[in-house]
Amino acid sequence: MATIKDIARHLGISVSTVSKGLNGASDISEELRQLVLDTAVEMGYTTKRMKKEEHKKLCLFIENMKYETADQFGYEIVLGFKKASSRDNWDTEVIPVTPDFQAAEKYDTYMLRRGFSGAFFVGFALQDAWMSQLPATNIPTVLFDNCIRRNPCVGYIGTDGFEGIDLGIEHLVSLGHRKIALLNGSLNSMVSDQRQQAFITSMEARSLRPEPDLMAHGYYVADSAKYHVPRLLDAGATAIMCGNDLIASGVIEECFRMGYSVPHDISVIGYDDIPLSASIVPTLTTIRQDRTELGKSGYYMLASLLRKAPISKMLLQPQLIVRESTSICKERSSK
Amino acid sequence: MATIKDIARHLGISVSTVSKGLNGASDISEELRQLVLDTAVEMGYTTKRMKKEEHKKLCLFIENMKYETADQFGYEIVLGFKKASSRDNWDTEVIPVTPDFQAAEKYDTYMLRRGFSGAFFVGFALQDAWMSQLPATNIPTVLFDNCIRRNPCVGYIGTDGFEGIDLGIEHLVSLGHRKIALLNGSLNSMVSDQRQQAFITSMEARSLRPEPDLMAHGYYVADSAKYHVPRLLDAGATAIMCGNDLIASGVIEECFRMGYSVPHDISVIGYDDIPLSASIVPTLTTIRQDRTELGKSGYYMLASLLRKAPISKMLLQPQLIVRESTSICKERSSK
Repeated sequence: MATIKDIARHLGISVSTVSKGLNGASDISEELRQLVLDTAVEMGYTTKRMKKEEHKKLCLFIENMKYETADQFGYEIVLGFKKASSRDNWDTEVIPVTPDFQAAEKYDTYMLRRGFSGAFFVGFALQDAWMSQLPATNIPTVLFDNCIRRNPCVGYIGTDGFEGIDLGIEHLVSLGHRKIALLNGSLNSMVSDQRQQAFITSMEARSLRPEPDLMAHGYYVADSAKYHVPRLLDAGATAIMCGNDLIASGVIEECFRMGYSVPHDISVIGYDDIPLSASIVPTLTTIRQDRTELGKSGYYMLASLLRKAPISKMLLQPQLIVRESTSICKERSSK
Repeated sequence: MATIKDIARHLGISVSTVSKGLNGASDISEELRQLVLDTAVEMGYTTKRMKKEEHKKLCLFIENMKYETADQFGYEIVLGFKKASSRDNWDTEVIPVTPDFQAAEKYDTYMLRRGFSGAFFVGFALQDAWMSQLPATNIPTVLFDNCIRRNPCVGYIGTDGFEGIDLGIEHLVSLGHRKIALLNGSLNSMVSDQRQQAFITSMEARSLRPEPDLMAHGYYVADSAKYHVPRLLDAGATAIMCGNDLIASGVIEECFRMGYSVPHDISVIGYDDIPLSASIVPTLTTIRQDRTELGKSGYYMLASLLRKAPISKMLLQPQLIVRESTSICKERSSK
């Protein structure tokens, strides 16, 4: 285990300068501070704070996702993680992040300076600055819905997206649908890519053609629907699988606005099973992600990485929840 | 929760006959006993034994794998599972099985009659009778190196085979090898199939041709080598990746018998990193599977399934252990 003296010797600077760098003092340059922190991380130096039992701290970074109230997707993930980690006497701090936040400081040094032992990343996008630093980190880190290969300190947890989409397609095909559309979430997201691929695979496995006209990327919000639904219906879709429940709620609304009824004219399937799904009209057939368990198992994985167990991937099984928004396919009457 | 009376009413037989069927009495026919047990399983009947805290019992079924001593592959898996489960006050019984054993009684009824709450399957083959019953079981079951899709009661744990093979190929290619052979384990095994596919993918990703002449299936024993090594060397192999360390030890011996030295003439990589790898001459470069952790996490997964958490897949990260059996590729002198 490296000491402050080792770092000082390695860099050829004084112990007090190293100490200033580690403690974020304002009278050394930003470049030198970053160099001290980088060196500390490289040499495996850990602050006293990290070693003390009473300061066992984890953090949960969250981006692009709402989690404050029970109706929001991230709520149970955060709660599941906090509950499971507190049982092992960890304090977990939830820290919302932005691209600017990530640009301000490197991931490893942020963690080191604040005495965090490990982190759970929720909602990050592929192009995020901290994502690009993860292949080389030695800080135990678990990613929800993102995957970094080959680094034994980093694990991936999520719901099996291939099986999720396949459950939806199977359900729609059993109802007689053939012209099935996918209104996906954002580009630059690992799960969006996965679901797109799953959609193609699942359609082809049933000898159906995944037509380019019937696939679209929007965003993970209800408003996405109005830009895409007219085109998907023009292309002949009788059913629309959506990237999440919010998109699906927007699709139902847009269909209604265009004079189509769900599920009478068009079947709609959501993804996630957030509380909204059971309360909108019609109630939403959807693919359930067990978010409490994603949080709990995310913690289990992080705890495993903290004790050097090389768990790299955990997948939860999705569940098809059949409600009112899907029904037997009928030929659409022309408007 | 169904009672014995419910089962009796459902089948139109007496309560005492149901009781005989559940308790394995000898004075009812085998067909009727099986019917009673099947019905009990279907109706969700659980024996008192299963409900009592003091009889919390799990079992670990093991087939095609040695585990009695520390030098054998299954040893740490079994130990890791037993240790982790005993911490939660479970008794775990280790039961070696054979095809005949599986033919004698259905999986669900075996578990029900003996009061086991869940099971860990280690070393099963794809064509095993109990494997074919798992898509419909409602008994929490975790499979090591086997996968049953779509049943939320059944989970799969293993080491990431794609990454394992890829680490080996990457290492060999970095040493200049191009004619790389795969001497795989048994057919009818999910991991053998996976590693075969991984080998092809990994070679193609490096613009190398996975030649049919350079791929062979043997068995997971040292003796496999002598049937295959002469042919692989004739086909020009300068390196051989093996399905496990035992095969690799046989390959080293066979190369020696044929007048080739490892690693001077031929590089050899094993798989698993059992204790043998560090003690044979030359010591074996291999792909490490963390077997203690496979056992521990296998238990975590089973415990999750027991509380209805739908974990379907857990993968551990393999690790390349470089020892003496691999070295820089040289053109082989003709014999």
